[in-house]
Amino acid sequence: MISVLIIGNGNVATHLNNVFLNADTITVTKIKSRNLINVPSADITILAVSDDAISEVSSKINNTLVVHTSGACSITELKNTTRKGVFYMLQSFSKDKEVNFSEIPICLEAENEKDYHLLETIAQAIGTKIFKINSEQRKTIHVAAVFVNNFTNHLFKIGNDICKTNHVPFDILQPLIKETVLKIETLTPSEAQTGPAIRNDEQTIKNHLDLLNKNQQEIYSILTKSIQNANN
Amino acid sequence: MISVLIIGNGNVATHLNNVFLNADTITVTKIKSRNLINVPSADITILAVSDDAISEVSSKINNTLVVHTSGACSITELKNTTRKGVFYMLQSFSKDKEVNFSEIPICLEAENEKDYHLLETIAQAIGTKIFKINSEQRKTIHVAAVFVNNFTNHLFKIGNDICKTNHVPFDILQPLIKETVLKIETLTPSEAQTGPAIRNDEQTIKNHLDLLNKNQQEIYSILTKSIQNANN
Repeated sequence: MISVLIIGNGNVATHLNNVFLNADTITVTKIKSRNLINVPSADITILAVSDDAISEVSSKINNTLVVHTSGACSITELKNTTRKGVFYMLQSFSKDKEVNFSEIPICLEAENEKDYHLLETIAQAIGTKIFKINSEQRKTIHVAAVFVNNFTNHLFKIGNDICKTNHVPFDILQPLIKETVLKIETLTPSEAQTGPAIRNDEQTIKNHLDLLNKNQQEIYSILTKSIQNANN
Repeated sequence: MISVLIIGNGNVATHLNNVFLNADTITVTKIKSRNLINVPSADITILAVSDDAISEVSSKINNTLVVHTSGACSITELKNTTRKGVFYMLQSFSKDKEVNFSEIPICLEAENEKDYHLLETIAQAIGTKIFKINSEQRKTIHVAAVFVNNFTNHLFKIGNDICKTNHVPFDILQPLIKETVLKIETLTPSEAQTGPAIRNDEQTIKNHLDLLNKNQQEIYSILTKSIQNANN
């Protein structure tokens, strides 16, 4: 049995605790980051706290191997004097949405092979897609993830806003959204690009801008320009 | 049997011709928009031409019912002196990607009930999701579609570019992209929003900007600001 201690109280901590509770080879304990007076010992201590708390929380822990779960932070952000690592799950966790860990890429980093294999063992207990990723690579993945997840979701929100304003059901767009994602399984995003921007269809672009509010116009214009520049 | 004539030579014309060829109740003919000297007669003539060609091509056709396939154009763009309609398939068609018509919302418009039912009959022969949508509503859907499809795909391209530049496989992001779409089946896009923008995580935002080129920085900043304003 490998003992895991999770410190944190957000979505990542909650989902991770739940999945480890179902893993036969792991015992898991979860505490809040405010309760660091009596930290239980564990083979692996996972800090699932906000990025800017990693440094302070880790500095207060003497457990053997301490890892954080942040895509944005380097392994050097950890300030424990013992061993360090990273257990980064490349997924967007929401409170009310179940997570299928077997589909999630788990990106691991450690200071030595033995610790890497320990992290790999607990990753294999919950997932199947495990990658050795160093801090530099992880930063890159994280910023790319912001574009394909956070910003994409915001475009969905704008689509939803436009539909709401004009009394059209947003659901009519769901098949198109699914197709947008299915396409890039077989085509590169450049090959999959369609629409008025890439066609240089100036009249349609002008008509679209007339239908939008100022914030939407700004985003429309900058993304249209970027699509056109990418293909010149 | 209903006779359909498709005029056009792009992706929409090709996919539509292929699916009608498989429909038992429809006979289909396809011609290029340059060959308008001897236009065969048909119950429904579908102009699958570029938006700016609709007016000119339609003005040369005397067939009974002429419809266009454009999301961006009003029914009044048609300049035939006979009956008019719209057969708009809300999907992104690429040359080398097969299309499942049964999943595609087909948005119909006609000048009278009889023509609407004729269009509905051929739509039912190839699809299952059929909507009565007028020209104003269709414009709205079309601009929303640009956000959720064209612009989303461009964000995927930027994610791909970032990965390529930093020698990380883009495939590692595919599960996250799928989850981004699955989430909005059960949550609204606002509820599904995560990431440094909505958390106001200034340090991560700054670190991300340092990793990007000028064009990427501009898009990152404007979308981050928009996410933050949407939730204030």
